[in-house]
Amino acid sequence: MNAKLSAAVSGNDFREAMSQVAGAVHIITTNGDGGLAGATATAVTSVSDTPPSLLVCLNQNSSTLAAIRSNKTFGINILSDQHLDLANRFAGQTGVQGAERFEQSAGWQNLQSVPVLAGALATFTCSLADMKTVGSHMIIIGTVEKVSVHAGGAPLLYHRRGYKTL
Amino acid sequence: MNAKLSAAVSGNDFREAMSQVAGAVHIITTNGDGGLAGATATAVTSVSDTPPSLLVCLNQNSSTLAAIRSNKTFGINILSDQHLDLANRFAGQTGVQGAERFEQSAGWQNLQSVPVLAGALATFTCSLADMKTVGSHMIIIGTVEKVSVHAGGAPLLYHRRGYKTL
Repeated sequence: MNAKLSAAVSGNDFREAMSQVAGAVHIITTNGDGGLAGATATAVTSVSDTPPSLLVCLNQNSSTLAAIRSNKTFGINILSDQHLDLANRFAGQTGVQGAERFEQSAGWQNLQSVPVLAGALATFTCSLADMKTVGSHMIIIGTVEKVSVHAGGAPLLYHRRGYKTL
Repeated sequence: MNAKLSAAVSGNDFREAMSQVAGAVHIITTNGDGGLAGATATAVTSVSDTPPSLLVCLNQNSSTLAAIRSNKTFGINILSDQHLDLANRFAGQTGVQGAERFEQSAGWQNLQSVPVLAGALATFTCSLADMKTVGSHMIIIGTVEKVSVHAGGAPLLYHRRGYKTL
C-alpha cells in the first residue's frame, strides 16, 4: 500500500518549497567555558510540555553549536519586528562574528551565563538535554528551565526569503 | 561559568511563552497498512538539506503518529489562509476523527499513498527516517522524497492562540 517513493529531491527544490513556510525568527545564545556565541535561527520548535522541551536545528559547522556542546546551556530569544538589525547581525550578514555580536546597546541580559534579550517577545533558558545528527545538521534538544514573556510586540517572521511581520 | 539553572518551568508558563512564537500551520497525513490518518501541527521544521529532511513533533497518543509508525511514509501540507476550516477539522475541533477527516471536496490528491492537498502553499512527501522520544511527544524525522510548490497564497499562521495571516 505504501507509495513507491523516488530518490530524494534536490537541495534546491527542497529550499524553494521550504521558503513557503513562514517562520518566527530567533536568536540562539550560549556562554560558558565554550565561549560566548549566538546565531539567528528559524528552525526552532516546541517538542513536549512534560517536561517543557524545545529543539533547534543548527548546521554541524556552526560555531554556536560548538559552544553549546561545551556550555551545556543555551537561550532562545523570539524576535519582534524591532529586531531586524539584530537578526541580520546574528545571521552573519554584517560580518561580525563570535562574542562581538553582543553589543551592549542591544539590551542583552545575563550575558555571563545564558544571554537573553530584554525586548524579545519571549525568552527561554534551556539546559542541553540531547542532540541528534541528521545529515548536515544537528537537532539540539533543550529542557526549559526558565521563561520570560514580554507580550505585546509584533513578531518578526521570515517567509519567501524576506522578513515580514504580522 | 554555566548558569545554575532552577527546576524546569511549569507546563502552563511554558505554553504561555510558546504562544508568543508565530508558526505556520500544517496538516500531517499518512496512509498505508496503518490506515489513513491526518492531524494539524505547528511543530514542524526543516532539519537538513543534505539529505533534504524535515521533522514534526506529535503527541505519543496521536493516532496519526501510530499510523505513520506503520506506514513509514507521511506528507506535510503547508496551509494557506483558505484552509482555516481544514486546520480546525484536522485539529479535532469538529469532532471528526480518522479517515473521515479527508473530505473529497477539500482537494486531497494521492489519497491511496501519501495524501497531499492540491491548494497547499507547498507539500512534502517524506519517508520515515527516524524517531526520537522526548517526554510526552515524539520527534518524527522524514527524508523528503517529493515536493510540490503552489506559491502565491498567503500563509495561515497561529500566534497567541489564534489564527492569523500575513
